[in-house]
Amino acid sequence: MNPTITAFETSPDRGQGLARDMRVRWALEEVGQPYEVRLLSFKEMKEPAYLALQPFGQIPTYREGELVLFDSGAIVFHIAEHHAGLLPSDTNARARAITWMFTAVSTMEPPVVEHGMMKIAESGEPWFEPRMALLEPRVHARLAQLSAHLGDADWLDGAFSAADLLMISVLQRLRSSKLVDGYPNLAAYVARGEARPAYQRAFAAQLAVFEASQAR
Amino acid sequence: MNPTITAFETSPDRGQGLARDMRVRWALEEVGQPYEVRLLSFKEMKEPAYLALQPFGQIPTYREGELVLFDSGAIVFHIAEHHAGLLPSDTNARARAITWMFTAVSTMEPPVVEHGMMKIAESGEPWFEPRMALLEPRVHARLAQLSAHLGDADWLDGAFSAADLLMISVLQRLRSSKLVDGYPNLAAYVARGEARPAYQRAFAAQLAVFEASQAR
Repeated sequence: MNPTITAFETSPDRGQGLARDMRVRWALEEVGQPYEVRLLSFKEMKEPAYLALQPFGQIPTYREGELVLFDSGAIVFHIAEHHAGLLPSDTNARARAITWMFTAVSTMEPPVVEHGMMKIAESGEPWFEPRMALLEPRVHARLAQLSAHLGDADWLDGAFSAADLLMISVLQRLRSSKLVDGYPNLAAYVARGEARPAYQRAFAAQLAVFEASQAR
Repeated sequence: MNPTITAFETSPDRGQGLARDMRVRWALEEVGQPYEVRLLSFKEMKEPAYLALQPFGQIPTYREGELVLFDSGAIVFHIAEHHAGLLPSDTNARARAITWMFTAVSTMEPPVVEHGMMKIAESGEPWFEPRMALLEPRVHARLAQLSAHLGDADWLDGAFSAADLLMISVLQRLRSSKLVDGYPNLAAYVARGEARPAYQRAFAAQLAVFEASQAR
């Protein structure tokens, strides 16, 4: 039986691929695992039946028989651990890829999300501009460090892995702010991820959900 | 040969156990693995030799022969994967524990760190109070969701695991703000973690480093 993931019935990003089901779809496409999707309204996500599966009322969840997981990073790791193609087989290289998976979601993503949330939720506040002037350098500091690490390599550590999948997904969240554009190697890195056939299939699938929601 | 971790020569938290080497020390103590510590000055952490190991100039790193890892969540996972005692042996329970590890560092920790950083870096800004009035409810929302999940259980999912270790470490960062005190089951959960002998040994070890730095 195929696993089932949850996703927004109508994604707030209007199908740009920034909702976190995209990471799981991409991982499933990379390993060639078909999947089912259960779409949720914002109301359903906050109801007790869903909170019993996902205590924070977020998408995606991942169901595989009796097992229910959440957190896109953890789900991507689960897929990577149980299929070939997303983690190196060499023990040390595998441990380093897992380091980069955690780094993507816990070192890179928090300032990126804080930056994005401020733009959405605080752009009308009197402190928006002066506080952005404090926050943007923190995002730039992380981007500069990541750019220095990547250098002219294609991927973070050897071959493409689940770490690249998560890191590229994080960097994509800066698309509208154009902050990544100042780092040509990072911009090329994101483009390299987006050019992968598995990414393209996952992107098309989530876009089709959004377009169907608009056609109703 | 024992693994070597890096830590602050003089921790900015003055030995309160909030620096991220504490998570790794605690994990190593839980599994009974002795370790060495290499102390770093703030200057050394930003030098090219260290940045080659840790691209973001942070502690801790973890060295085990040829392998160098960073990111405290990833290091705790590595320890948990290679020793008994920090992850369940049942396949599904193990996957759920990993879900909670990612959730601790990528869902719970970001608003907690944003809250703490604001208190440190923006308390003199004119927007401090009105913005805190926006941010605190976001932290409370996460705490309420976590509290509802935990209920009257001792740990997040069955027996104590690496997920509890990380989650308790995140909640400890709210100690000075007392935000956790409004959730008696979470306060008891943190206390339960801190009462573990392995936690006590790790805490004493990091405090001894700080005290030695002050005696010089």
